[in-house]
Amino acid sequence: MSRRTVFFVSDQTGVTAETMGHSLLTQFEGLEFRAVTLPFISTVDKAEEAVRRINRAAAEEGARPIIFSTLVQDELREIFVTRANALFLDFFAAFVGPLEAELQTRSTHRAGRAHGIADLAAYTTRINATNYALANDDGAGGDYEHADVILVGVSRSGKTPTCLYMALQYGIFAANYPLTDEDLEAGTLPARLEAHRRKLYGLTIKPERLHQIRSERRPESRYASRQQVQFELRAAEALFQRYGIPVIDTTECSIEEIASRILNNTGIERRLRP
Amino acid sequence: MSRRTVFFVSDQTGVTAETMGHSLLTQFEGLEFRAVTLPFISTVDKAEEAVRRINRAAAEEGARPIIFSTLVQDELREIFVTRANALFLDFFAAFVGPLEAELQTRSTHRAGRAHGIADLAAYTTRINATNYALANDDGAGGDYEHADVILVGVSRSGKTPTCLYMALQYGIFAANYPLTDEDLEAGTLPARLEAHRRKLYGLTIKPERLHQIRSERRPESRYASRQQVQFELRAAEALFQRYGIPVIDTTECSIEEIASRILNNTGIERRLRP
Repeated sequence: MSRRTVFFVSDQTGVTAETMGHSLLTQFEGLEFRAVTLPFISTVDKAEEAVRRINRAAAEEGARPIIFSTLVQDELREIFVTRANALFLDFFAAFVGPLEAELQTRSTHRAGRAHGIADLAAYTTRINATNYALANDDGAGGDYEHADVILVGVSRSGKTPTCLYMALQYGIFAANYPLTDEDLEAGTLPARLEAHRRKLYGLTIKPERLHQIRSERRPESRYASRQQVQFELRAAEALFQRYGIPVIDTTECSIEEIASRILNNTGIERRLRP
Repeated sequence: MSRRTVFFVSDQTGVTAETMGHSLLTQFEGLEFRAVTLPFISTVDKAEEAVRRINRAAAEEGARPIIFSTLVQDELREIFVTRANALFLDFFAAFVGPLEAELQTRSTHRAGRAHGIADLAAYTTRINATNYALANDDGAGGDYEHADVILVGVSRSGKTPTCLYMALQYGIFAANYPLTDEDLEAGTLPARLEAHRRKLYGLTIKPERLHQIRSERRPESRYASRQQVQFELRAAEALFQRYGIPVIDTTECSIEEIASRILNNTGIERRLRP
């Protein structure tokens, strides 16, 4: 079967179109797709150029492409509907009608500001949360007073990217602390962390996976060895249990999933909506 | 008019439902919504509990809620369709039919792995890109050999969050370098940056906005003063022009938008899809 090209078409960044398209395509296993994002399609000229590109792909591949569109302006959508040799999946058309009826309000049909800058307050929240995550990463900083959550776990269990993601996506103040050999051997938390016990959330991971991840970084090292990894994870899990710290196993989880599960389990309020 | 509650319902993280819902609701200006995410609705019990919660909101607010759903299992969707007193916007139903027809393949109807961990390679790319951004943030590191892009600009023009976002979202290796007073006064780039001129991308921002942002951080400081801000921005823009560095004005842009525009303008390939 020939490979299909999938186009994500948007008058803005294309993030929504990509997210929705990707989510749907994962429902079709075993098929191969080539993904192309066409963002900022905000004029007739750009729309016509996009259609030419889409039609070239159709001709070259002998299978019509799939378009995931979040375009909102009727004039631009029309160009794709009438001229593109493609399956046009129109996010806007599918849902705006029912929403207008329900809300008894006409939508603006104006180019989305979904990922535009909302206001200075929201921007500031996001930047402050990101700076907080950077300043309180990997045991540094230690400003746990202002933390919404403090992730604890051994090296490479996923703490740093999860904190950054929570900051950027949700404006959450997330610190992280890597359990040291001393912490693990003593089986106790440093006093400055214990004072904020209720904010702690443990990350763990399967030993084999951690061995793989650490081996990518320092092959053949003691740090990456099965024995060391097993010791650290067992000691960390014992410590979590001792202090009653909730734990998530990150082995099968993406960063999005880790972040969502922690928010869901703790009830921490998002300061920002995507 | 009464406030509506909007529920984002998913068998996974809810990120797709939130993204699509938010994008649609921005089309309705002046209305107020309360957003609640109900992720990991993966069993009949959880679905029934979610419906009870939704129906409570309907009763309390006197207006039926809106549900943005990315549920894929028929059994669970059915519970919402038949029992929830709400407008049920069904992402799956809207698009999977046409996709199945087009691809001549049945979809799996299995709980999404859209934000599940794809494979070790993708995970590693993402983590490596994040570590790269952290190590080469704010002029540190200087491993420009491995950079996909190097953002340059004055302090608080948006460099750091944009680099982190590009790493987490797209697996791109993005470094950033803050123009110093010496750089600005000399009107030249440090030699180690000049060697990678083709990778440079300038960020600029309107003086009034930068004054606001810096004032949040250090009120009444020279750093935040209108005079200093204006000097730095003028000198930075002159420097961008001198070296032929492409520039984006971040004043009205979200981080998503800055990242998308840079990718779109440079043609840098994404290493990851959302």
